[in-house]
Amino acid sequence: MRRIRITVAYDGTDFHGWQIQPDLPTIQGALQNAVSEIEGRPVQVDGSGRTDAGVHALAQVAAFSIANPIPTPNLKKALNRLLPPAIRVLSAEEAAPDFHPRRHARSKTYEYRIFRGEVCSPFERQYVLHHPYPLDTDRIIEAAAVFAGEHDFTAFAASDVSDAEGRSKVRTIFSTVARVEEDRLIYRVRGNGFLKHMVRNLVGTLLECGKGNLTPDDIRRLLVPGCGVKAGPTAPARGLFLVEVEY
Amino acid sequence: MRRIRITVAYDGTDFHGWQIQPDLPTIQGALQNAVSEIEGRPVQVDGSGRTDAGVHALAQVAAFSIANPIPTPNLKKALNRLLPPAIRVLSAEEAAPDFHPRRHARSKTYEYRIFRGEVCSPFERQYVLHHPYPLDTDRIIEAAAVFAGEHDFTAFAASDVSDAEGRSKVRTIFSTVARVEEDRLIYRVRGNGFLKHMVRNLVGTLLECGKGNLTPDDIRRLLVPGCGVKAGPTAPARGLFLVEVEY
Repeated sequence: MRRIRITVAYDGTDFHGWQIQPDLPTIQGALQNAVSEIEGRPVQVDGSGRTDAGVHALAQVAAFSIANPIPTPNLKKALNRLLPPAIRVLSAEEAAPDFHPRRHARSKTYEYRIFRGEVCSPFERQYVLHHPYPLDTDRIIEAAAVFAGEHDFTAFAASDVSDAEGRSKVRTIFSTVARVEEDRLIYRVRGNGFLKHMVRNLVGTLLECGKGNLTPDDIRRLLVPGCGVKAGPTAPARGLFLVEVEY
Repeated sequence: MRRIRITVAYDGTDFHGWQIQPDLPTIQGALQNAVSEIEGRPVQVDGSGRTDAGVHALAQVAAFSIANPIPTPNLKKALNRLLPPAIRVLSAEEAAPDFHPRRHARSKTYEYRIFRGEVCSPFERQYVLHHPYPLDTDRIIEAAAVFAGEHDFTAFAASDVSDAEGRSKVRTIFSTVARVEEDRLIYRVRGNGFLKHMVRNLVGTLLECGKGNLTPDDIRRLLVPGCGVKAGPTAPARGLFLVEVEY
């Protein structure tokens, strides 16, 4: 058996997220179908983490084990032939037998794209949040920096992530930068891990800052569990891209 | 009644072309629905020409007549609120009462995009023809120039455009340029009018040149009706954009 590590780009628009679900198109499901077809038996594909329905990836990392003797350099082409065009394998290489894309990940980088112009191009409509309303971008840039460091992100976890799971909600954010690029506001965040919906909740909270409903000080309070401040709403999936996973 | 001229961008992927058809999503149908909703009665929307199913537009021009007193500057926003996000009105302005976007058009410009890299980005898959095979691009660039001038384009018309219609198939091509941009081959053509499928047939023929199956001299022969040379196949719709209509 060889352990194969692949880097995968996908347009998440038409998928019900990464995680396999019966009778629904998912990224993991499509990859498992393709790998299983090559291997001639069901094969599990592990990812670096789940992405929500509608979230995109420029470079998700996944891995699987196969016995098929197909040369590793040919695997990329073979998989792309079997996958829908919305999912593309960018590279395939042999990895250590115990390589696990989630457990071994040291950091992940996400980017969220907001288009602020009046009319959103039809060709970008599924890849940005269109927000043609006033925003105090200086305040967003200031607020984004507040997330840096090790914090308890309970206030930014999806409400269905129960505390009973007992899993720590402490994460370390290595970099967190909002920037303005012409008609766009782009937020990029790199951390050692992210809770369910966390990036979209960070963005929703930054937008509340930009609208004047929250201050950077409110954000500091949000990073202390039980503070009583409410985070912003979950920003739509379509503006979010998983851009890099580091090992 | 005011005559309103609009410029419209659309992602043609999910539409059955420009022309209205019963029970099928079309660009003209969507625009007529939106304008009729504002006007409170059925309104016809005229376009500069039909685009095929799957063909995109960066700046299609259309026109309609309304009695509704809504200020012209507000029409763009009102229409965009009613239209699906895949269709966007970029501008709306008052035009001469007899303005007709097709009859008064002096030229149209189309662009066709071919991606030649090994793996086509999931985010571009609906906007390019993916052709990761060898092509003699110098020969394509040479052949593209042959279309310039006034010619009978019968060989490049859709086969269902019958001669019995008696309409002239002579068109004048003002500019016709293929160029290489990194991994892309881009063909741009500007003319006084185009027959059904004509641009896609020009592209299919240029691809045959690039593959070595046709020569620039064959193209010269194709411009003489009854020459016996067969044009290339119709290139897929998704690589084609209507980029400008001039008046």
